[in-house]
Amino acid sequence: MTQDFRFTLQATDGRARRGQIDTPRGDIRTPAFMPVGTAGTVKAMYPEQVRDTGADIVLGNTYHLMLRPGAERVARMGGLHDFMDWPRPILTDSGGFQVMSLAKLRKLDEQGVTFKSHIDGSSHSLTPERSIEIQKLLDSDIIMQLDECVSLPAEEDELNRAMELSVRWAERSKQAFNDAKGRALFGIVQGGDNHHLRARSARHLIEIGFHGYAVGGLAVGEPQDVMFSVLDEITPHLPTEKPRYLMGVGKPDDLLGAVARGIDMFDCVHPTRAGRHGHAYTRFGVVNLKNARHKDDPRPLDETSPNPTARRFSRAYLHHLVRCEEILGAMILSQINLSYYQELMAGMRNAIEYSTFDQYCASVREGWIKGDLPALE
Amino acid sequence: MTQDFRFTLQATDGRARRGQIDTPRGDIRTPAFMPVGTAGTVKAMYPEQVRDTGADIVLGNTYHLMLRPGAERVARMGGLHDFMDWPRPILTDSGGFQVMSLAKLRKLDEQGVTFKSHIDGSSHSLTPERSIEIQKLLDSDIIMQLDECVSLPAEEDELNRAMELSVRWAERSKQAFNDAKGRALFGIVQGGDNHHLRARSARHLIEIGFHGYAVGGLAVGEPQDVMFSVLDEITPHLPTEKPRYLMGVGKPDDLLGAVARGIDMFDCVHPTRAGRHGHAYTRFGVVNLKNARHKDDPRPLDETSPNPTARRFSRAYLHHLVRCEEILGAMILSQINLSYYQELMAGMRNAIEYSTFDQYCASVREGWIKGDLPALE
Repeated sequence: MTQDFRFTLQATDGRARRGQIDTPRGDIRTPAFMPVGTAGTVKAMYPEQVRDTGADIVLGNTYHLMLRPGAERVARMGGLHDFMDWPRPILTDSGGFQVMSLAKLRKLDEQGVTFKSHIDGSSHSLTPERSIEIQKLLDSDIIMQLDECVSLPAEEDELNRAMELSVRWAERSKQAFNDAKGRALFGIVQGGDNHHLRARSARHLIEIGFHGYAVGGLAVGEPQDVMFSVLDEITPHLPTEKPRYLMGVGKPDDLLGAVARGIDMFDCVHPTRAGRHGHAYTRFGVVNLKNARHKDDPRPLDETSPNPTARRFSRAYLHHLVRCEEILGAMILSQINLSYYQELMAGMRNAIEYSTFDQYCASVREGWIKGDLPALE
Repeated sequence: MTQDFRFTLQATDGRARRGQIDTPRGDIRTPAFMPVGTAGTVKAMYPEQVRDTGADIVLGNTYHLMLRPGAERVARMGGLHDFMDWPRPILTDSGGFQVMSLAKLRKLDEQGVTFKSHIDGSSHSLTPERSIEIQKLLDSDIIMQLDECVSLPAEEDELNRAMELSVRWAERSKQAFNDAKGRALFGIVQGGDNHHLRARSARHLIEIGFHGYAVGGLAVGEPQDVMFSVLDEITPHLPTEKPRYLMGVGKPDDLLGAVARGIDMFDCVHPTRAGRHGHAYTRFGVVNLKNARHKDDPRPLDETSPNPTARRFSRAYLHHLVRCEEILGAMILSQINLSYYQELMAGMRNAIEYSTFDQYCASVREGWIKGDLPALE
């Protein structure tokens, strides 16, 4: 373990945890939401705009970056922070998940996975060792082990095989990581919706020893209650003194429920992707700005929002930008959605400190249930 | 003529003019370049970013705005300035040019033009009176008369017919404008590449009397020397005490040449469109960031640029964004190109004040001819 990476648990409220991760590139307040900067950019946002929403850390995708512009090239350019001009912490995934979801002609064996790029068909391979090497070349602050993620539903045999393989890859990842100074390595708990497999996976990973523990293999199409049930079972098996990261999650309601179950970190493309499709996240829930009800509405999205951008433009203007597929629409709504996500994380952190987490979540949900402003007559 | 709109000629150098247009919404330093905010947004830019490049005024397109979101709707939303949150002056075109270039099933007669929308095929009509009405509904500060623009090359008969029609429409536009307080109305000189027709057009328009005179029907496919030759002939026929606007122009070299011939105002989609296609305008000329020579280049686009964005990101990063078709690439390059255009306008204004216009243009052109930085070995 390196000295520069430290997790401090500052307060709890039920199973919800308020903490802080110290890294050489800055602190991460937890629970934390990490905007996804897929290919070295959080889409449609300047880095300082991402920071201004309240983000302490962003995520970079190893799969995308290894294909374009290439990990060695990013390293020659001074690493991903310099390349994209984001000086704060970056977590990189292992690439495994997107090899499974995006690449063509995959072949997986004990050694790793070979695949063809979805961009140009070129051949690549990813082993636990190469994934760690790439993430070091990117100059990642939090590195993820390579794992195999199985989509649900799946047979127990298949879940077990992938979990066992992921544990062996976790060991190789730890070896390859080699206590890299100033960086952290997270293991990934697998096992699908099978509680015994999840518990075994966690036990193995804890024996190997990581700076943090991720829950993988969720948000792969299962209902929310299945995800929550897995979290209910798994978080008690994880060490309290290490951060817990639920990968690829989620929508605002998922975040509330997962923090309630002891999760500290999240990432998801949803807020920026939804923004590019004309959907705004607000205290009223999701507002679909494509909807004709907004076309003559002079009101801002939310005039009481702490985010100036959500108070600035009329719904009629946002509707117009979305209908015309104007880039500014994607820019504004990405900003609004990431701001709302960060507002939610800040609200949860504050509520945990004051032991009012349940009340906070209830009041947030009440706003969503109440829904959007009544349409104008 | 309204009292709130005033043009002051402050200095001349040869035929190049340094001036200022005062409007109720702010002053416009001339020679001025007006970024084009086609559908109520300068594409991929927040309004304050447009202002920060040095723009005093933007252009809105009547054709686009009458179709989406509709002029009456913009009026109900408080006008175009409020709608897009650009508090400074806006010039709107008459819609005529884009009816000719974009709409389907056009029918033009003495009364005006009927057409079908290129978006949904709906039927619309535009007369001089309706064009002025729409521009007032948009709350435009500088309104353009409806005219007929003929593409070049064209027969003299055809150029004459369109010029005469445009003059009759100019009279009707003036009537419809009705000395609207705080706004200006510009007439448009037509006549193609025929000097006699251009001179007759100018004489007629001056008799009618406008706040400013535009040169239309150029930048429609003719070579630059044809355009310059028309300007050489026409500007001496225009009153010195009124601003002169060359519509739809152009590339940086066109701006230098047209200012040298006495033009005060310009608009063009080129800098933002080129930015969305990966082309950057710099003191080295145009840099095509798609080009593989940039993929390993850690140097910024121009480390001596007064624009921080042009100094901020490496060419390798810009190349990567352009190749991945990332929105941030369009955002950055639109900003860089509009900044460079404004830098050029500021440079020309300054040079005219100091009677060094020719030297300034020569030194700018020298930079372009010298070209981009040598590629790295």
